[in-house]
Amino acid sequence: MNKRPLLLLTMGDVNGVGPEILAAVLARPETRQCCRPVVIGCAAVLEKAREQFPACPPPAALSDPAEALAAEDAVPVIDAGYPAPPVKPGVLDPAAGRCAAEWVQYAVRLLMADKADGMVTCPINKACLHRAGYPWAGHTDRIAEMTGAPDYRMCLFTETMRVVHNTAHLSLRDALDAVRMPRILASIRIGHDALLRMGFKTPRIAVAGLNPHAGEDGAFGREESDEIRPAVEAACREAIAASGPWPPDTLFGRMRDGESDMVIAMYHDQGHIPMKLIAMDEGVNVTLGIPIVRTSADHGTAFDIAWQGRARPASLQAAIAFAARLAGWREKRNAS
Amino acid sequence: MNKRPLLLLTMGDVNGVGPEILAAVLARPETRQCCRPVVIGCAAVLEKAREQFPACPPPAALSDPAEALAAEDAVPVIDAGYPAPPVKPGVLDPAAGRCAAEWVQYAVRLLMADKADGMVTCPINKACLHRAGYPWAGHTDRIAEMTGAPDYRMCLFTETMRVVHNTAHLSLRDALDAVRMPRILASIRIGHDALLRMGFKTPRIAVAGLNPHAGEDGAFGREESDEIRPAVEAACREAIAASGPWPPDTLFGRMRDGESDMVIAMYHDQGHIPMKLIAMDEGVNVTLGIPIVRTSADHGTAFDIAWQGRARPASLQAAIAFAARLAGWREKRNAS
Repeated sequence: MNKRPLLLLTMGDVNGVGPEILAAVLARPETRQCCRPVVIGCAAVLEKAREQFPACPPPAALSDPAEALAAEDAVPVIDAGYPAPPVKPGVLDPAAGRCAAEWVQYAVRLLMADKADGMVTCPINKACLHRAGYPWAGHTDRIAEMTGAPDYRMCLFTETMRVVHNTAHLSLRDALDAVRMPRILASIRIGHDALLRMGFKTPRIAVAGLNPHAGEDGAFGREESDEIRPAVEAACREAIAASGPWPPDTLFGRMRDGESDMVIAMYHDQGHIPMKLIAMDEGVNVTLGIPIVRTSADHGTAFDIAWQGRARPASLQAAIAFAARLAGWREKRNAS
Repeated sequence: MNKRPLLLLTMGDVNGVGPEILAAVLARPETRQCCRPVVIGCAAVLEKAREQFPACPPPAALSDPAEALAAEDAVPVIDAGYPAPPVKPGVLDPAAGRCAAEWVQYAVRLLMADKADGMVTCPINKACLHRAGYPWAGHTDRIAEMTGAPDYRMCLFTETMRVVHNTAHLSLRDALDAVRMPRILASIRIGHDALLRMGFKTPRIAVAGLNPHAGEDGAFGREESDEIRPAVEAACREAIAASGPWPPDTLFGRMRDGESDMVIAMYHDQGHIPMKLIAMDEGVNVTLGIPIVRTSADHGTAFDIAWQGRARPASLQAAIAFAARLAGWREKRNAS
């Protein structure tokens, strides 16, 4: 049983949907079958969320994840010295923002100290973080910064479709400027590495074009010939099964039909539009290119429905399963 | 029965899938229930395509669409003086390209002379047209040019989802430069007008943002505040139920769920990626902003499967139904 990876689940903003989706997934046996979960958050808040999900084991407040093994019939919870303020559903409370931020930083520090195998994050509220004095662009930027890996990639994964984004939270104009051969090649390599970790023997990576019809032989746009194709060719020389650039408007349907294992998207919405359309609930946000395993539920705090029992835990459930899969590889590597 | 609009169906490249999908849809009773079809193409080729679809009535070669009324038990076909060369499935034959081009031009001339109510185009091959000496960027540009309406919009429609593209076959960089308030307002007006024609009383038009998360209040990109929002506000002042700019990555799912009747997309792939993913077979290409009704099957000549009985006629069938609906309005307007 010790083969199951130890995953840190950060509770996120306690006034959002984080605590209830955590309780919902912890109530399911498959969660403990794939990992040893440790919640980084507040035990009292999880206890409150259990009212909706009584099948969730009771929380056991710990101070070190190593104690988690002793707590098989309870959910280990570590607050890292930051107990949550009283829950006020849907309210933007800087005190809650501070806890959410500190819990994330604590999880990253544990991972960098090799005390856990991966982390899965519940949603935070950016405005709330800012008011609490944490001027992060988001979770991901801060995590990348703490791990010393600023050149990360934001990815969306489902069971059958996987997208690596060449850029994420940039204006479309700035994203165009980042459609450059070295960056695209790095995106391909990062995606290829993740697929190998997930057990693919020869992952097939389809690289999207940037322009309509992938530029139609240069009729509208030169990025395909000047930047994307050279990156694909360089990847192929590294024995990566990369192909493209492909017309963006049929590429995602072709991946759905099984023609490829992953798409490299040239900008945020090129990947987000199809993935959100197909997998609104099951999509998982995966951060690649950092030295730790990190996945995330692919939605926000949803303050408007928080603590009403309406939030769907499917994305968090899938995020935990993906983290376990990626972290399992990590354990194997360390053992060898 | 005379209320049914008279639709001109251009046969396209005879070496592609056009003839067989035409025969397939003409074999279905619903085609004649919604319109009076007149094929602009070659009777001998349609006769050959009928071998796969014997329920298609036999072709009757005419020289004027006015004769079509007399031919209820046959399919009227006009070749406009351009009989097709021998069919060579999948072969790029300039002689076939020439016919395809001339048939389209003949149909436009008939429509501009008010001798028919709308046209539906089967696919042509651009390279084939070029070799035949017709240097068109495509069907649509030529049709727009002939009707004196260069500022058209390329749209994709399904039964429940409709997208107007602010620009179509431009590089993404050039498309960004066209994200300007007057052009966006024109896109909204053109879309609104089409929905009124289709019978919507108060069409709900959702305008997409350009940047990730619609720019997140200016954090990445100013087009939302500087160009798109002013266009939406101007449209609202004209009593159009427009809203936005909305985050692009959830907008299409929301339209699918019934929250809006139409999306105004800021560039080709923003609309094409979701529409092709959801409606690969039923999507219809509609040209708006021109003074005639024109729809098109939303696929190419598919030379690789031509004349094998494998082409799916769903898109052409839907294109005919949409053209009939749009042209029906036109008839009502002329009668009033």
